[in-house]
Amino acid sequence: MSQPKITPLSGFPEFLPADRIVEQHLLDVIQRTFELHGFVSVETRAVEPVERLVGKGGDADKEIYAVSRLAGRSDGAGPAAAADAGSDLGLHFDLTVPLARYVLENAGKLQFPLRRYQIQRSWRGERPQEGRYREFTQADIDIIDVDTLAPHFEAELPLILAGIFEQLPVGDFVVKVNNRLICEGFYRGIGIEDVATTLRIVDKLDKIGAAGVEAMLVESGLNAAQARQCLALAEIRSTDLGFVDAVRALGVTHPELDEGLAALAAVIREGMAHAPGRVEADLRIARGLDYYTGTVYETFLLGHPEFGAVCSGGRYDELASDGVRAYPGVGVSIGVTRLMGLIVSRGLATASRSTPAAVLVAVNDEASRPRSNAVAAALRARGVACEVAPAAAKFGKQIRYADRRGIPFVWFPARDAEAVDEVKDIRTGEQQPADERAWSPPAEDLHPTVIAAQRDGDST
Amino acid sequence: MSQPKITPLSGFPEFLPADRIVEQHLLDVIQRTFELHGFVSVETRAVEPVERLVGKGGDADKEIYAVSRLAGRSDGAGPAAAADAGSDLGLHFDLTVPLARYVLENAGKLQFPLRRYQIQRSWRGERPQEGRYREFTQADIDIIDVDTLAPHFEAELPLILAGIFEQLPVGDFVVKVNNRLICEGFYRGIGIEDVATTLRIVDKLDKIGAAGVEAMLVESGLNAAQARQCLALAEIRSTDLGFVDAVRALGVTHPELDEGLAALAAVIREGMAHAPGRVEADLRIARGLDYYTGTVYETFLLGHPEFGAVCSGGRYDELASDGVRAYPGVGVSIGVTRLMGLIVSRGLATASRSTPAAVLVAVNDEASRPRSNAVAAALRARGVACEVAPAAAKFGKQIRYADRRGIPFVWFPARDAEAVDEVKDIRTGEQQPADERAWSPPAEDLHPTVIAAQRDGDST
Repeated sequence: MSQPKITPLSGFPEFLPADRIVEQHLLDVIQRTFELHGFVSVETRAVEPVERLVGKGGDADKEIYAVSRLAGRSDGAGPAAAADAGSDLGLHFDLTVPLARYVLENAGKLQFPLRRYQIQRSWRGERPQEGRYREFTQADIDIIDVDTLAPHFEAELPLILAGIFEQLPVGDFVVKVNNRLICEGFYRGIGIEDVATTLRIVDKLDKIGAAGVEAMLVESGLNAAQARQCLALAEIRSTDLGFVDAVRALGVTHPELDEGLAALAAVIREGMAHAPGRVEADLRIARGLDYYTGTVYETFLLGHPEFGAVCSGGRYDELASDGVRAYPGVGVSIGVTRLMGLIVSRGLATASRSTPAAVLVAVNDEASRPRSNAVAAALRARGVACEVAPAAAKFGKQIRYADRRGIPFVWFPARDAEAVDEVKDIRTGEQQPADERAWSPPAEDLHPTVIAAQRDGDST
Repeated sequence: MSQPKITPLSGFPEFLPADRIVEQHLLDVIQRTFELHGFVSVETRAVEPVERLVGKGGDADKEIYAVSRLAGRSDGAGPAAAADAGSDLGLHFDLTVPLARYVLENAGKLQFPLRRYQIQRSWRGERPQEGRYREFTQADIDIIDVDTLAPHFEAELPLILAGIFEQLPVGDFVVKVNNRLICEGFYRGIGIEDVATTLRIVDKLDKIGAAGVEAMLVESGLNAAQARQCLALAEIRSTDLGFVDAVRALGVTHPELDEGLAALAAVIREGMAHAPGRVEADLRIARGLDYYTGTVYETFLLGHPEFGAVCSGGRYDELASDGVRAYPGVGVSIGVTRLMGLIVSRGLATASRSTPAAVLVAVNDEASRPRSNAVAAALRARGVACEVAPAAAKFGKQIRYADRRGIPFVWFPARDAEAVDEVKDIRTGEQQPADERAWSPPAEDLHPTVIAAQRDGDST
């Protein structure tokens, strides 16, 4: 059978080694920060029963990839019959649905509150476009408890995000925070009954502008005063507690509004203490307010507003329930592939080299390859990544081999017992005697680094 | 819609947090060793066109999971019509088929010889059993070159494997090596024409014994002398160069046999130098000899022979070809999920704690939570993973919270300006004054460790 033509699959991004090093840097920063905050790693299987996926996470039905055994399919029995145990399987489209199932399945063996992180791929069959993929990696944290979840966790998550984004080569950012209770209480306080519809319309503010939203609100049944009040609320934002007075100035009172303002103030207060300017109360944030029940988060990159949110999340009073106990949770999801798409397409950062190797050990001739191997083994034993030249070519060619990969050092083993080994920094040409049992590259050359291409020359 | 009952899916293993820490340790050891040897990370998408998967990797046809959009399916158009661009997709069943495609797709942008590692999941629809899963993680390395591949790479791979398995809590191991040319040359030297069939029968030696193999060989058309010679060859093994003389003593000569013996001797010689006793020439290793074209590898755990090979690979003269250039390669694949199945089911190793956190910062009362948060932030800034107690409960309860997770230290912030903070090692009860800007746990408590349960008490 002739092979199909090899072409990339739209929506299934893959990276070359140098960009993969950038991605590994992102993942390292994220994982290290999650672990510093005491989150435990969980990985779930890629598949869930289709009936568990359908109808979750908004209008995701059409996005699910079904999975079935090819052998079963070609039996003519059809995909449904092909799956085992009568259960159709699909690839998960996020990490929240699998988490809910994992928590219920293992509730008796887990410690609550469960602080779990999960960095895995998900799949959605939707139309690919910039920043939107069919296969993508997300990095999630959630804190799940039994029956009740302490509100201070809602203040902790934005600090973790700020700690991560400060280390990523994506420029300035802001973690915008809102609370469903503020909108709900405010709307009810001015006599709006259909909160969900109002939220959906207000969510269009950035797309269609204030006039457009006002018109739609009126069309939905609000009077002009109500519509203007909704818009006034949505215009409020502050990185300090100023938002509270601004809301009060609108003259609306409602118990839920009070509760929401207190909760959001607690989140902003922690932000002011530990990540000043990075956490902003923004009362127009409405996405997800239809299924989140408290705080909601959306992180934006100030230099790339067109890219939309790169991290979203919120609190849900019932992440999962087994009918007896409820498991409330609060969580956020970082779109790693989304960030990589931005970094690669905008050239925001590059790796200092395309390999982990800091040293290429040259080979004088094939007969002396064991000596070069011994040098490499000694360097590796002290944590210095290296490779041995693939062929005993002329040194100029061996140096070019290192140069093409960005390997900074070439090691020249002595040709005889009289001579000593030497190591050359091929960027400066500087060459010096060296002992493989003692020499190490400068700390900044030990591992590949990621170099931000921004004006301020940030190197992380 | 009522939720389906939550039960594990057979063949799709998931781990609890403590076992996941063991898996992370395995993956860290593997990745670190790969990188020390200068391998670059590549990840490929989970899906390939089905026509690229079918017929690859032996009799894998029946094992492929097809992927199709659920929305397309419920349109009644069938799975084939549902995939985009007329191309059916399937989940990859190994990491070699995607690598071959990736190399061809990016040949112009990659540096050869390409030393790549890839740690990812694969999927097979086959019947689950011990050590065999439907979703599993493999850790692969391959070295790919253009047109020709230097033989010294074949000697390097077993050393990398030995370096990894020496660090894993799985006891003694041996990397068995053979070379297809030895069998092929030897068989031809004694007049056997159907090399493939003979290899397939000899491969059953461990299962059906010498008498069974001899009978099958005769049944396949060999005479008794030929069959006995095949068995005599298969009995030869040595961790030094003794195997060469042993083969010579059988009195067979053939140019391919000479070539194979020289190649295998070169591999064993490197093993003797850098991993003595760990690399063994074993001339009964025949699995994969039908598609590998030179050296083949199979790694076994001496304490768990029933588990079969935990790592396999070999050399292929044509990993990929674009019709103009061929890409020969040599590679091995470590069965990470397989190793985890062994470790968990036999209790070979456990994590010292079930969370990355080394410290639980206690909370005196909710009003002073910001002070506890500040301690945690200071510890994290110096790389000490910690969490803050979820509730200002009695200290006994806060200590039990740490104890249940194996967190070794509890930090007590001072109650007033007169007092000082103290930190308690809850294993010994020892409590001492501490400053969060200076105190660190002992190095061995900084991160969770993996404790081997073997007799020799190896702790890695």
